[in-house]
Amino acid sequence: MISVGVVGLGYWGPNLVRNFHTSARTELAWLCDHDPERLEAIGRQHPGVRRSTNLEELLGDARLDAVAIATPVASHHRLAKAALLARKHVLVEKPLTASVAEEAELVALAETVERVLLVDHIFLYTPSVGKMAELVSTGEVGDLLFFDSVRINLGVFQHDVSVLWDLAPHDLSIIDYLIGREPESVMAVGASRTVDGLEDVVYLHLDYGNGLLASLHLNWLSPVKVRHFLAGGSYRSILYNDLDASERLKVYDRGVDVSTDPAGLRDVLISYRMGDVIAPRLDATEPLFRLVEHFVDCIERQTAPISGGEQGLRIVRVLAAAQKSLSRGSERVRL
Amino acid sequence: MISVGVVGLGYWGPNLVRNFHTSARTELAWLCDHDPERLEAIGRQHPGVRRSTNLEELLGDARLDAVAIATPVASHHRLAKAALLARKHVLVEKPLTASVAEEAELVALAETVERVLLVDHIFLYTPSVGKMAELVSTGEVGDLLFFDSVRINLGVFQHDVSVLWDLAPHDLSIIDYLIGREPESVMAVGASRTVDGLEDVVYLHLDYGNGLLASLHLNWLSPVKVRHFLAGGSYRSILYNDLDASERLKVYDRGVDVSTDPAGLRDVLISYRMGDVIAPRLDATEPLFRLVEHFVDCIERQTAPISGGEQGLRIVRVLAAAQKSLSRGSERVRL
Amino acid sequence: MISVGVVGLGYWGPNLVRNFHTSARTELAWLCDHDPERLEAIGRQHPGVRRSTNLEELLGDARLDAVAIATPVASHHRLAKAALLARKHVLVEKPLTASVAEEAELVALAETVERVLLVDHIFLYTPSVGKMAELVSTGEVGDLLFFDSVRINLGVFQHDVSVLWDLAPHDLSIIDYLIGREPESVMAVGASRTVDGLEDVVYLHLDYGNGLLASLHLNWLSPVKVRHFLAGGSYRSILYNDLDASERLKVYDRGVDVSTDPAGLRDVLISYRMGDVIAPRLDATEPLFRLVEHFVDCIERQTAPISGGEQGLRIVRVLAAAQKSLSRGSERVRL
Amino acid sequence: MISVGVVGLGYWGPNLVRNFHTSARTELAWLCDHDPERLEAIGRQHPGVRRSTNLEELLGDARLDAVAIATPVASHHRLAKAALLARKHVLVEKPLTASVAEEAELVALAETVERVLLVDHIFLYTPSVGKMAELVSTGEVGDLLFFDSVRINLGVFQHDVSVLWDLAPHDLSIIDYLIGREPESVMAVGASRTVDGLEDVVYLHLDYGNGLLASLHLNWLSPVKVRHFLAGGSYRSILYNDLDASERLKVYDRGVDVSTDPAGLRDVLISYRMGDVIAPRLDATEPLFRLVEHFVDCIERQTAPISGGEQGLRIVRVLAAAQKSLSRGSERVRL
Repeated sequence: MISVGVVGLGYWGPNLVRNFHTSARTELAWLCDHDPERLEAIGRQHPGVRRSTNLEELLGDARLDAVAIATPVASHHRLAKAALLARKHVLVEKPLTASVAEEAELVALAETVERVLLVDHIFLYTPSVGKMAELVSTGEVGDLLFFDSVRINLGVFQHDVSVLWDLAPHDLSIIDYLIGREPESVMAVGASRTVDGLEDVVYLHLDYGNGLLASLHLNWLSPVKVRHFLAGGSYRSILYNDLDASERLKVYDRGVDVSTDPAGLRDVLISYRMGDVIAPRLDATEPLFRLVEHFVDCIERQTAPISGGEQGLRIVRVLAAAQKSLSRGSERVRL
Repeated sequence: MISVGVVGLGYWGPNLVRNFHTSARTELAWLCDHDPERLEAIGRQHPGVRRSTNLEELLGDARLDAVAIATPVASHHRLAKAALLARKHVLVEKPLTASVAEEAELVALAETVERVLLVDHIFLYTPSVGKMAELVSTGEVGDLLFFDSVRINLGVFQHDVSVLWDLAPHDLSIIDYLIGREPESVMAVGASRTVDGLEDVVYLHLDYGNGLLASLHLNWLSPVKVRHFLAGGSYRSILYNDLDASERLKVYDRGVDVSTDPAGLRDVLISYRMGDVIAPRLDATEPLFRLVEHFVDCIERQTAPISGGEQGLRIVRVLAAAQKSLSRGSERVRL
Repeated sequence: MISVGVVGLGYWGPNLVRNFHTSARTELAWLCDHDPERLEAIGRQHPGVRRSTNLEELLGDARLDAVAIATPVASHHRLAKAALLARKHVLVEKPLTASVAEEAELVALAETVERVLLVDHIFLYTPSVGKMAELVSTGEVGDLLFFDSVRINLGVFQHDVSVLWDLAPHDLSIIDYLIGREPESVMAVGASRTVDGLEDVVYLHLDYGNGLLASLHLNWLSPVKVRHFLAGGSYRSILYNDLDASERLKVYDRGVDVSTDPAGLRDVLISYRMGDVIAPRLDATEPLFRLVEHFVDCIERQTAPISGGEQGLRIVRVLAAAQKSLSRGSERVRL
Repeated sequence: MISVGVVGLGYWGPNLVRNFHTSARTELAWLCDHDPERLEAIGRQHPGVRRSTNLEELLGDARLDAVAIATPVASHHRLAKAALLARKHVLVEKPLTASVAEEAELVALAETVERVLLVDHIFLYTPSVGKMAELVSTGEVGDLLFFDSVRINLGVFQHDVSVLWDLAPHDLSIIDYLIGREPESVMAVGASRTVDGLEDVVYLHLDYGNGLLASLHLNWLSPVKVRHFLAGGSYRSILYNDLDASERLKVYDRGVDVSTDPAGLRDVLISYRMGDVIAPRLDATEPLFRLVEHFVDCIERQTAPISGGEQGLRIVRVLAAAQKSLSRGSERVRL
């Protein structure tokens, strides 16, 4: 039984509380928020759980194994560092930090103290992404040709991060998980139509080498909500539409076949394959529950999480490069 | 009654034939194709219409007022030039030519000989785009915040043009029609996954100044067909989904309102408006029929077409700049 | 502040608990379930609330104003009767009972003891149905021409009621609310494909007089989930699709106009109006929260609820007539 | 080469003309319409084809093998009878006639003169219905549990037939083709909201025995167009949505499993299977072209068509029974 404290009880924290409370493998031991009213409101529903407005109090509890941090981004580094130094396992909301240096420091620290550092890249724990990874790794998709993601909706604006830092980590973590490598270069185009200096529309183009491009459209000004993640393959292609509750994933047995002209002429012959479309049955487990189970597994078996600090670091590196591209008039930035 | 000859009877030509045949204001006088079998096949259905494999024969007919050219792009300049020199009014398929210089020459020539030069930017004649233009010009949309278009599907590959030259003219003509000005700069990202050197995936970013960006995703490798044109406005936003036959246009009375803090502090206050969504009733006239009527109007009244040579020239200039950006590693190219 | 006890903590009870806990106008005073473990599980989250496995204990609490009953249908009559006799206000899950006589008894009893008897016809408290009622009552819909509802999905089977008794109350309460009268006759067609004697597919036809028909398709065997409620009007028509989270209600400004031939001949002239489609902005309040507020309003102001015992009685009468029709080979049954 | 004449050049006739013209196995020999202007309009496009306003002239042409009749329903019997007596093969629009006696006479006559009598139940020639038939006949669907069809839209009103006679033949022919037997009894519920005595809303319930029900909702007053044909099976279920151009057919590997309690108690155990959803690739051939090919096959090989006079007779029998049910207050009518 892993003993856990949840730090930050705002928007996402209560979901962590609920899952640590529900799991048979974790004990919800502490609740922590700097706002006493918030602490009281959530705490009332969990009478047996200790409360504090001060992280130090949790870290001083020798029986506490792990902390889950769901505070604003700016505080992630300080809180996670303190927790690791106190030799607690750490789960942090995405993005881990807003700085490559800080992120690298945390990754190194986690290694030194031999504690699990897991970033809440929640999409990796959805049955949809799990199925996509299976289709890619077994070769059913063939060679990957392109990724394209549209993640747009009206608000909610964050006051401290742009649409890039808020939404891109989702897609970047999915792609990182599917192909397991960093892009070679990054370019970003953006606009700030609402608050000066804080992008609310961003297009991010990533070059993963060998012709594999990924493009993300992130937008807080769109009147219509879209969640389309498209993975084009030479053999099959996948559409992941998170808003289609009945058919979230569609696998298209379609593609383009190219052959050289048998007569030896220079013309290429192009033909199309139009096969079935399959919406595979997906498990209905809540992603956050699966993440909690995975966190416990990693702690108990001393294994690396699929969304560990290294992945978090790779993603923050991409975000920082994208920000640099934005500030330099969409120049291409190499990693 | 305007006497018209149709040149090029391949994929699109027969649609022109049908509409010039149907319209009470035009007389289908000539059919022309270099392939005698094709000419015979289409000609049989129009027994009273003269046929030729040679454009010169048509141009020599003093009673012929106009020619409509639906041949491959590479021949547009030569054929249109010959027709204008013969003082015929000219309708040409998009894109007018593949070269800015050639296009400029045709525009100047049309002016000199005082003949109508109309480019078949067919989308401008759809009820959907007509309604969008009305919503923009009457101020119902407010300030335009961004354009985003997704025009993706599996094939059909053209052997002589890339996805950029094939699909982008549609969106570029719509935007040009809505705002009536050229972009200040262009950037393009692309890949050639099927035929070397011929892009099948292209992202095009256009900066129209004052923060107004337009982004196009053009793709021949997508297993799923999408036609989403989104115009974000400060007051209302429009989604034009050409595949939704029952609700092609949706007007969202939604937006973000920003105000300065009344207390004079530097925080901005952001609020969201979530109003009705309206799918306006649209006329059901065939766009090509409306284009034919407009062509006749312009000839009879000696007025400039909404998709005249100048617009064609602006669009070819953008395409050429985008091609340059592609060849220079996605560098920003100023116009 | 109205003091409330919730009886029955199975599937729906916890939602009542949560809302009575949240509302500033109610005090959650008691939790009751015959299963001590269930009582403990829910009770732990509400430490200050008294618990009992016995309704009598609640009814003996003079400070308790009301009880909310969310137990299986078979127990509704007994529990509600006891509560009313103890002069408590009562909220009961739908259907109120499975018998017209029992239902009539409760309605009369509530009147005698001057207590509110509210049936949880939850759909009446959705913003969608509220908007529909407004469109009907203000005359925007014109004369009602027909109702058609499709409420189909795969399971969940109830072991004690058929698909008729489980799903039809939703549509019947909506129609009752919109037009405020009972049908003149009822016919039902059904099949039991899974459990002998318990219908899993039912079609219910209701004749409301003056040509107004309502038809319901209720089905637990459909692989696809559909929630389409269509109200056809002479002037406008409404589609209520509960599964379309972004556009639940669509108002079609479309219809058929019939006029007599001006020449006095007997031919009728039929024309179609095809106007805009509007998806009105809907409030986002949780329906159950609105129901709780309404329950409190009725208690405090001594007014009749929109889903009171009389409505419950009308609906059980229709259900009983439909059951009779099913048992007599789909004979028409008059009410 | 089969020589064919097309009789009736109104709404559907020109489609027959085009397909008989296109097919390499038929020769379009005659065009016939009582309206000389209509005859001239269509005839001009087919200069080599003989024209007449009089069917007798066609029937007197000894080299003419077949006639295709696309006139109003009331004339079908007279024209088809004359053609068969002249020993021509006959293709007739649906419904064959409006009377069982007339229909039976034609079927007997076709047998006597040994000529093909094919009714244009066009849906049987769609790739979608072909695929459904394959799934049913190979056992992939398992036992059929129910059919449900929704075929609703706004207009177009026919002046001589009700929505029952206009739309029901489509679904009835599909079901007849899938299961190859007649219903045991029929019940219909309907309303005439526009033209007195001509139903514009009809619900038709068919009992095919062994618990297999089929229900059709036919409606000319619906603001929204729906084409949902659902075939529920014990093993798999099929949704045929003719308006979803990209995924017309969906096969759901879902169902309900019922087992008896292993302990021998009387409780049944119900479980759900939730498997993949497959949209099979469908051929893109035009249904009418396939029908024409099938007509020629039947003539050349002297085989019975899949939509022959016998099927037409079965369907008219059902329609007549449904009409009787409507006129008797929705009484059940046995066949």
